[in-house]
Amino acid sequence: MTPFVNPRIEHEPAIAHLEPFREFARHAPYLRDGARKYSRKICASLEDAVRAAGVRDGMTISFHHAFREGDKTINMVVDLLARMGFRDLTLASSSLLSCNAPLIDHIRNGVIRRIYTSGMRGKLAEAISHGLMDQPINIHSHGGRVRLMDSGELAVDVAFLGVSTADEFGNANGISGRSRCGSLGYAKVDAARARTVVLLAEEIVPFPNAPASIAQDDVDFVVKVDQVGDPSKISVGAARITSNPRELLIARLAADVIEHAGYFKPGFSLQTGTGASSTAATRFLEHRMRARDITASFALGGITGGIVDLHKKGLIETLYDTQSFDADAAESLRTSPRHFEISTNAYANPTSKAVYCDRLDMVILSALEIDLDFNVNVITGSDGVMRGASGGHSDVAAGANLSIVVGPLIRSRIPTVVEKATTVVTPGECVGVVVTDHGIAVNPNRPDVAERLTAAGLPVTTLPDLYRRAISLTGEPAPIGFLDKVVGIVRYRDGSVIDVVRQVKD
Amino acid sequence: MTPFVNPRIEHEPAIAHLEPFREFARHAPYLRDGARKYSRKICASLEDAVRAAGVRDGMTISFHHAFREGDKTINMVVDLLARMGFRDLTLASSSLLSCNAPLIDHIRNGVIRRIYTSGMRGKLAEAISHGLMDQPINIHSHGGRVRLMDSGELAVDVAFLGVSTADEFGNANGISGRSRCGSLGYAKVDAARARTVVLLAEEIVPFPNAPASIAQDDVDFVVKVDQVGDPSKISVGAARITSNPRELLIARLAADVIEHAGYFKPGFSLQTGTGASSTAATRFLEHRMRARDITASFALGGITGGIVDLHKKGLIETLYDTQSFDADAAESLRTSPRHFEISTNAYANPTSKAVYCDRLDMVILSALEIDLDFNVNVITGSDGVMRGASGGHSDVAAGANLSIVVGPLIRSRIPTVVEKATTVVTPGECVGVVVTDHGIAVNPNRPDVAERLTAAGLPVTTLPDLYRRAISLTGEPAPIGFLDKVVGIVRYRDGSVIDVVRQVKD
Repeated sequence: MTPFVNPRIEHEPAIAHLEPFREFARHAPYLRDGARKYSRKICASLEDAVRAAGVRDGMTISFHHAFREGDKTINMVVDLLARMGFRDLTLASSSLLSCNAPLIDHIRNGVIRRIYTSGMRGKLAEAISHGLMDQPINIHSHGGRVRLMDSGELAVDVAFLGVSTADEFGNANGISGRSRCGSLGYAKVDAARARTVVLLAEEIVPFPNAPASIAQDDVDFVVKVDQVGDPSKISVGAARITSNPRELLIARLAADVIEHAGYFKPGFSLQTGTGASSTAATRFLEHRMRARDITASFALGGITGGIVDLHKKGLIETLYDTQSFDADAAESLRTSPRHFEISTNAYANPTSKAVYCDRLDMVILSALEIDLDFNVNVITGSDGVMRGASGGHSDVAAGANLSIVVGPLIRSRIPTVVEKATTVVTPGECVGVVVTDHGIAVNPNRPDVAERLTAAGLPVTTLPDLYRRAISLTGEPAPIGFLDKVVGIVRYRDGSVIDVVRQVKD
Repeated sequence: MTPFVNPRIEHEPAIAHLEPFREFARHAPYLRDGARKYSRKICASLEDAVRAAGVRDGMTISFHHAFREGDKTINMVVDLLARMGFRDLTLASSSLLSCNAPLIDHIRNGVIRRIYTSGMRGKLAEAISHGLMDQPINIHSHGGRVRLMDSGELAVDVAFLGVSTADEFGNANGISGRSRCGSLGYAKVDAARARTVVLLAEEIVPFPNAPASIAQDDVDFVVKVDQVGDPSKISVGAARITSNPRELLIARLAADVIEHAGYFKPGFSLQTGTGASSTAATRFLEHRMRARDITASFALGGITGGIVDLHKKGLIETLYDTQSFDADAAESLRTSPRHFEISTNAYANPTSKAVYCDRLDMVILSALEIDLDFNVNVITGSDGVMRGASGGHSDVAAGANLSIVVGPLIRSRIPTVVEKATTVVTPGECVGVVVTDHGIAVNPNRPDVAERLTAAGLPVTTLPDLYRRAISLTGEPAPIGFLDKVVGIVRYRDGSVIDVVRQVKD
């Protein structure tokens, strides 16, 4: 059948500025090919997907880190790109963890030239802290990462996104199939913004795959891989469950603060970040909520089994999940009609039109160091080596009505409360309360909170007092030996530079 | 508390190209103001919202038409813009209907200068067909509308989107509250693409409103209005339920075609468009599906109570809903975990990364005219006056494996099968079968289908035969008197011009 030709539009001045109709499949030639119409995104191998995506030297490639220590995608893709001979890439993963140590070789060989990440741990972080890279890495918050993308600084050419299931059009989620990471809150951002989006799917399921956490209209290519991640390792490390008595003591004190700080009212909202004490605080909330007949409106952020338990018991009405910290969270996302997956744009991007973290009453956050100005370090250890992540810390601290930072006063004989933080990630102005196993300090900018906690009989003291107590136990810590070279730039959520990390002396 | 100042970043060359941290609320000053943090998007009146959105002369404003003949938003906003003195606006509604007749005055007065719409009906369509506007309107398909936006031709400055409920951050849906239109599939596109998004909410509900069909990070302003639409009028007109015996006969024949054309297999997919016979065909599918033990994978598009009934009975597994055609559909969207809302970008945009309409096996579409080349007119009546809508017609006809166009052979003593269509919206190449109350014609490009339908004993004939039969009953229709002036440009889904509509003689 010959394409339709319309004599009525020939030589018609009213449409001279527009193209005439040529044929129905002009913009979608696969419509004339039944098989290709369905299979056009499917790549036979990861290598084919890399070629189809048009990766070139110097490009920016991105990943999500929802599998945390169980991730299999980042190393696999970078290994392949190295074998294929690509160089000078910018690696933009929503975060990096200990499992990413194999990247060291690829940095050394010039495959990866620049890194944007929320954080790093283990051997990779040590190597970079010791000067492995020519260019400093950029450390961003989860919200700040989206802002860097929207500002144009972080323009992702190709996103490689691991998912447990996808159909051949690219509808994907992390709540079905074998290797379920739960929420794809990080990946949703890359899917919506990257020039080209490649899904690495552990299982390709029949169309239509639903719900579509990543939707077909954001996906260019789909490739089956053996394994995208090991969900049993999501809660290893930062997201672990604790039975350490000191961490549980801190968690209980944090729950006391939640109860008495002035926001524990029907319909309150909360977030518990990573870190054992933070996560454990939920265990101490149930009886407090029942005793006062208080239910929460919503919980936000990294969702844990503890939060899910309160949700199932009807004590937290709705969950907004950017990252599922364990299998319970992933299963709840699959089954609960009031457990929603949200992107980090909706969660925390400070230049988004609205973020959930601004609706939080209280958040519990952890810290590697807290200084006398309440500034918090979640990146570098006491030896100056990177061993943490910015995460949502500065985002949520800025948005919540009350930020509660928890940590042991002394960690491996090193004080957590310090005179000046080695690295500042979250400015002290955004921190309301510090909870340690030696007492609670309230920011002088929150006299209302100090008054309530004191009235409730909680062990309120001051940061200088906590600092003195720490020093009396450990002695004055020796200053860290830094070289001049900047190895990391700590970007505040608005894109500005709040600190730098310098190379440590060997 | 004074903002944090970091001596470590002063005079550091490694960050000379970046801004130093100033203070935590620099990009979000409302974070320092508890009340404004929550209420900053709420406008006291629609007039305030218009001012806040920065409407100016010459801008493009957009709307969705999910309330169809019950819409209260479009006229209300344009009336206000006229009273506020704005002029030369481009009106981009996903469609316009008979209820939009009050726009005539605003066109006459120069408030509205250009129109993009899927269609128009009633007095407004008559007036424009008679030369009301200086500039021709642009008629697009639902998918083509998104393509026009993405190409930059249709750049929406301010979207005014009516929703039944929204919270103060702008999380909104059409499945809660009083006036529920169901799916916000059209509005989702505008929310994601317009420079500024204003929600007109009939009810402002407590945060967080969930599910969020329109998400907070796409919304700039929220204003409460008395009524956004009357859902009882959604199914008036094109989406009505029929008891007309001739329409039911055609519906039954269409169901016969579905059964025998070669695609009626386990896991098949279908769409039924607007138009009484199309909608009614679902009534005749149930016993055919049960008799053959066939269930459908999914149904797409405008979702009706008939489709919902099959879904509830387990005969259609999943529903993808761009527009809910009645209260049953809206209620199913609220309650069924396998009834999903999708944007028109995921539905039908030919330059989207993938669209659901490409996965359809069969679609039933209606027609005002079908010509001997199978070209279909769904815009102009036999008098040359506009009285219809492009809708998803050309999108789905291009994507589906088999398009079945239904219509009575004669409508009000005027043939539906004609020699040359007055206006071509969908090229004949994309039409597989034509079903009339006088028999079925199969496109010569589908001999496989003709063979199967003939073998099944269906009344297969040809379009020339149907045309002769029509003419023998009605006589040769008098040619329509057109003037030269182009009043409407029919854009194919890829943006090209497939036809023009000229001014009719009085």
